[in-house]
Amino acid sequence: MPDEFTRIATHLAPLAGPEGLGLLDDAAILTPPKNRELILTVDQMLENIHFLPHDPPDLIAKKLLRRNLSDLAAMAATPAGYLLTTALPPSTPESWLKQFAQGLAQDQEEYGIKLYGGDSSSAKTHISLSATFIGHVAPGQALRRNGARPGDAIYVTGTIGDAALGLRARKGQLEDPTGYLTNRSLLPTPRINLPLEKIASAAIDVSDGLLQDILHICKASGLAATIQAAMVPTSPQAAAFGAQYLESRLTDGDDYELVLAVPPAHEAALLTACGSVPVTKIGTFHAGPPTVTVQDISGRPITFSKQGWRHF
Amino acid sequence: MPDEFTRIATHLAPLAGPEGLGLLDDAAILTPPKNRELILTVDQMLENIHFLPHDPPDLIAKKLLRRNLSDLAAMAATPAGYLLTTALPPSTPESWLKQFAQGLAQDQEEYGIKLYGGDSSSAKTHISLSATFIGHVAPGQALRRNGARPGDAIYVTGTIGDAALGLRARKGQLEDPTGYLTNRSLLPTPRINLPLEKIASAAIDVSDGLLQDILHICKASGLAATIQAAMVPTSPQAAAFGAQYLESRLTDGDDYELVLAVPPAHEAALLTACGSVPVTKIGTFHAGPPTVTVQDISGRPITFSKQGWRHF
Repeated sequence: MPDEFTRIATHLAPLAGPEGLGLLDDAAILTPPKNRELILTVDQMLENIHFLPHDPPDLIAKKLLRRNLSDLAAMAATPAGYLLTTALPPSTPESWLKQFAQGLAQDQEEYGIKLYGGDSSSAKTHISLSATFIGHVAPGQALRRNGARPGDAIYVTGTIGDAALGLRARKGQLEDPTGYLTNRSLLPTPRINLPLEKIASAAIDVSDGLLQDILHICKASGLAATIQAAMVPTSPQAAAFGAQYLESRLTDGDDYELVLAVPPAHEAALLTACGSVPVTKIGTFHAGPPTVTVQDISGRPITFSKQGWRHF
Repeated sequence: MPDEFTRIATHLAPLAGPEGLGLLDDAAILTPPKNRELILTVDQMLENIHFLPHDPPDLIAKKLLRRNLSDLAAMAATPAGYLLTTALPPSTPESWLKQFAQGLAQDQEEYGIKLYGGDSSSAKTHISLSATFIGHVAPGQALRRNGARPGDAIYVTGTIGDAALGLRARKGQLEDPTGYLTNRSLLPTPRINLPLEKIASAAIDVSDGLLQDILHICKASGLAATIQAAMVPTSPQAAAFGAQYLESRLTDGDDYELVLAVPPAHEAALLTACGSVPVTKIGTFHAGPPTVTVQDISGRPITFSKQGWRHF
């Protein structure tokens, strides 16, 4: 495998925006956009924790970017660029890095973002990756987790639970004949650039798991939440499994859809703002200690053994 | 070990500045300083690559911050804050994270920086860490690697080679009775806040190795460099080993001192600007293909088997 400097020059330098100075300096130089606040976030992807060894490298790259883009979407921020860290074991073939860089390039084009800089290292055994993203919002307009109010409706974008089932399919635990669920697990769609900042009162993206992520809003906003299991939007491919994986769909996360707290007066505007992105009302925030209650179709609470995926 | 959210709340949330929103949101919100350019950099520290398993956790934390601060120093930037990633194996004791956070807290105080946010994960086998730093400079004033001119003197801050010998001491390969070399390896001193932006024409910090890092300036500036081995500043503790480890001292890196290209007309101003920080002239940049020649005391070139540490 070529040395670090050659690898950076070959595969990563072509991805750098002018801020990255050709990846030849100690750091990047960024002129911040005028009259905007910056939104900063970082996410890691580690082999055997966040991806499997034989996942396609271009999809690993895209998921790394999209998980971060989803965090920016949850704050209603416009993405600008990112810094990248890679730590690759010596056994990593050059073709892996080439395909990884191709995935980065394609999503940079897709989302209008640029590489600002980064750090490359060797690793002992497993690949580890991270991306630090910079986005921006109008001052004071970032969506937070702490803005939900009693009576706000709980909406989610897209469908929930596909990624959980897709991961099971990738592990050979269930059948996914069309590949739809697998694709939703490997390649999420971050809901960026929806004009939600004056419509939603709070937001989060579904990474830890729907229930856990709603609980994050509950804790930050000092509220309880009740959702109806039957109202959680489910793809036909996931619905085909019936109730068998209900807990997994609601708690395993990795969906990168948005959970939105929406005051009743803004519900009509929400549908307009989301345009072709589907949004579905699944419940409400209300006064009470921070808990998330899931009701079945007759209003009885359903209990689960966990609320969300935790890193152990 | 407590779950991820409890660990973050206990050990890391107290370190967060207001931009970090209590580490309870998807991202941080930063109002960029007016009329400044932002300088962005990221560095990783991986167990068994950049630190040893039994290194004190507080020193690992400080070195993680200081390596990044050194990158900012090389661009003459003022540090502001950082995002942190941690990936810890399940076997990592709670006390490790506690001491790690104490090291972060002490250096946040020392260097006037704040935690903006981050990401925590589990890891399979080895600890991996990264920090993404945000600093700032007056527009157009960032020092670059590409600004050196023929005839510029090459200066370095501090002493070179202590960290290389200190690493050997930590591995039991040589004696370090005072612990001085070990300490220089574990706890570098980043040369931040020196007013070099109108004095130096180019700069880099010594991370890869003195010769490799001078070569980076040569390549970016289109110049050759010649240095005198006997002029490279050496601590008494390192000098005690004589010429035995000369190659290691000049090529193993990890010093986090600055290499500066300084026009002859600015040499006096440099000494004033550096105040109590020692700076030593070790050679000159001159026209020629990008190479670094090391001369012995009689002007003969010394050849080494490598120019610097590379990640393999």
